[in-house]
Amino acid sequence: MTPVAVRKVSQDHLDAGRALARRLFESLAEATATPPGVTRVAYGDGEAYAFDLMAQHAARHGVERRFDAAGNQYLVQPGGDRSRIVLIGSHLDSVPHGGNFDGAAGVIMGLALQASLHAAGRTPPFDLGVVCLRAEESCWFPYSYIGSRTALGRLDAAALDTVKRSDTGRSLAAHMADLGFDPDAVRTGARLYEPAEIVAYIEPHIEQAPTLVAQEVSVGLVTGIRGSFRFRAIKIDGAYAHSGAMPRALRQDAGLAAARFVVSLHDMWDCFEAAGEDLTVTFGEIATNPEAHGFSKVPGEMHLCLDVRSQSAETLRRAEAEVRRRSAAIAAETGCVFDLGQCTTSAPAPLSEPLHALMADAATLAGIRAMTLPSGAGHDAAVYAEAGIPAAMLFIRNRNGSHNPDEAMDMADFDAALAVLDAMLSDPRIAELPRPRLSPSNP
Amino acid sequence: MTPVAVRKVSQDHLDAGRALARRLFESLAEATATPPGVTRVAYGDGEAYAFDLMAQHAARHGVERRFDAAGNQYLVQPGGDRSRIVLIGSHLDSVPHGGNFDGAAGVIMGLALQASLHAAGRTPPFDLGVVCLRAEESCWFPYSYIGSRTALGRLDAAALDTVKRSDTGRSLAAHMADLGFDPDAVRTGARLYEPAEIVAYIEPHIEQAPTLVAQEVSVGLVTGIRGSFRFRAIKIDGAYAHSGAMPRALRQDAGLAAARFVVSLHDMWDCFEAAGEDLTVTFGEIATNPEAHGFSKVPGEMHLCLDVRSQSAETLRRAEAEVRRRSAAIAAETGCVFDLGQCTTSAPAPLSEPLHALMADAATLAGIRAMTLPSGAGHDAAVYAEAGIPAAMLFIRNRNGSHNPDEAMDMADFDAALAVLDAMLSDPRIAELPRPRLSPSNP
Repeated sequence: MTPVAVRKVSQDHLDAGRALARRLFESLAEATATPPGVTRVAYGDGEAYAFDLMAQHAARHGVERRFDAAGNQYLVQPGGDRSRIVLIGSHLDSVPHGGNFDGAAGVIMGLALQASLHAAGRTPPFDLGVVCLRAEESCWFPYSYIGSRTALGRLDAAALDTVKRSDTGRSLAAHMADLGFDPDAVRTGARLYEPAEIVAYIEPHIEQAPTLVAQEVSVGLVTGIRGSFRFRAIKIDGAYAHSGAMPRALRQDAGLAAARFVVSLHDMWDCFEAAGEDLTVTFGEIATNPEAHGFSKVPGEMHLCLDVRSQSAETLRRAEAEVRRRSAAIAAETGCVFDLGQCTTSAPAPLSEPLHALMADAATLAGIRAMTLPSGAGHDAAVYAEAGIPAAMLFIRNRNGSHNPDEAMDMADFDAALAVLDAMLSDPRIAELPRPRLSPSNP
Repeated sequence: MTPVAVRKVSQDHLDAGRALARRLFESLAEATATPPGVTRVAYGDGEAYAFDLMAQHAARHGVERRFDAAGNQYLVQPGGDRSRIVLIGSHLDSVPHGGNFDGAAGVIMGLALQASLHAAGRTPPFDLGVVCLRAEESCWFPYSYIGSRTALGRLDAAALDTVKRSDTGRSLAAHMADLGFDPDAVRTGARLYEPAEIVAYIEPHIEQAPTLVAQEVSVGLVTGIRGSFRFRAIKIDGAYAHSGAMPRALRQDAGLAAARFVVSLHDMWDCFEAAGEDLTVTFGEIATNPEAHGFSKVPGEMHLCLDVRSQSAETLRRAEAEVRRRSAAIAAETGCVFDLGQCTTSAPAPLSEPLHALMADAATLAGIRAMTLPSGAGHDAAVYAEAGIPAAMLFIRNRNGSHNPDEAMDMADFDAALAVLDAMLSDPRIAELPRPRLSPSNP
């Protein structure tokens, strides 16, 4: 890339985008309200409403509406060079009784950018596509990243039939066909855009934690998406015994073993943190067996769920070995048996460093304070990154987390992110992005 | 007491008692079977069957059958001195699908002693009463020691109406009246025997832990019954958050707080143990909220049950203060809020040291290996001790704990205990027991 000097530019042309964004958030919230919060079912009514709403408003600034075989929607503003495309977007489904911003903010940001360019009479250097992805919230179809995987021809074909929607029990393929899409083409890996045609995939998203709130910063520039390993069904077997009568030396207290395990893995987290390694450790479920426990019984069994995340695959590898080592040690100390059960993993997805640098320069140019941080949650950007497409994420400050009706993004912060992305897309260096090494599909 | 030299005696007269015990255990197990295990509902069918079975067999060795106002049954073998009575017994109810020995072994032991004396043509020095107590298992009526409290006129009168049976929802008074007993008399503290008339209360019971099994000893001589304090509904409130996205410094992880609390109170136990103090610490229930938890959420709330026991009231007092101190410290460290909830307590009940000494001498005389140990579980003997009556307990070796169908007492161990108690009752020093200071009723 050729370095270019940053220069102050007017942001007046963004007024059109800001106004459109406000209208879109309001319409979405009203039409998909299921108090408390909103519900936009994947391949269902709320998602369909959102897709149409975006297309209707985009039509006013002259876009082409396209669908891929899986029903992902592209609202394409023609650019100077029509052989390549910059994608901006996210998903439009929500969790049940979720908030209005998770997913939708990324799509609406894309439309606001298009409307701003249109109002200013500017043509983007490449086609500018707002991509509306399907089915990201795995509560509907218990499978990760259906929209981005199908968009890139990277969905395991078997999932079309084996993955069923939680409310209907019908398959993903059946729901696609219901809406007039083409699961058979999805099965063969059909896609609307080849990875080589995609200049960049940019996903704006509300932050799902209060880091930006705590740091009093409007936008976050994301370095990468943490991968994970998960033991969702850890079982610890000890022996039920009378709380007062069983001598301590003869106890096999599964509850104590579980407590030591939780504390021990937080000690492990201390060690990794002290060594400067990115890690999170969470026991989301911890439970004695309600069928068998009692206030005067030493608990004989425990159920635990463990979720460990890092931006580094090597850190995850060493943490998993440490989890196994520590569980074995505690089993030996407490006379309990640990069954860690199945381990499922997702690989960390580093995002594009050149795009990150462009975003950072754009923030400076636009006069917006930004900070750099990882994404602890998974996002469709991970699939684009994995496919070798330069991918970036920008977080928007948000109180109260996500996946709940209390998501709270201020429109002033949305506007700040809009200014950053507008400046970034105006930077000619975006045409010169080096491409990461492409990885094979369905790794 | 005048010390007397121990002397070897024949145990042939015990054959009648041994034979009767075997018949009684068999009849009980058959008639109250509810596979798996047995069920003898307090003030219900199984208990009524057991009461009648004991009375029918006792009639063959010439006893008087009496009931008190609450329906506790006394099978009284007349003694040389009819102005005082030695009571041997326990309760005859069981938990649902429990074992055949918990409670029943104490009553059957009393009948076996009477049958043995009868077969030998011997008259006991005082009346020898086998007491069949009601409603000890608090699963039926959620209240401790109903049988022994009513027998001694020490039941809180309000409990007659407020305490309801778990299966019928009807009051204790209603169930007493159903069987023809007199709850109004119970209300006024009526009793069949004044504490001063009771020479001793002796409760044989299966051990509810495997101490005797581990030590390869048939019988245990109990020093006292542990008291307790219990927090049955501890609530820890933190904040639900995204497992991967929420930065560590901003977490309020209720699961981690709970785990630290469990580990911390086991550290506390280490300290008390090192100082030679009797203590047990048990968290019987440990649970995230199944309505709200999830594998990718930092848990925002926890429920815990804590049961702490000791033979020393002073140890319990200091342990409770330490529980409060440690919970406050962990709350401060983790940013969580601890609500310990209501604390219920039971006082430790030291058993009679002179009776313990008589039992120890009797074991030597009978050639039975015995060991001394505390009772971690509560028993009706605690109420007799509290009322100032010399009380003793003898544990019989038992595998697999109690309150389950797998209770396993060998008849050889029952026979060993029978020989100890027979030798003890033959010891003239039993007439000279010093009486502990009487405590007021309903302390």
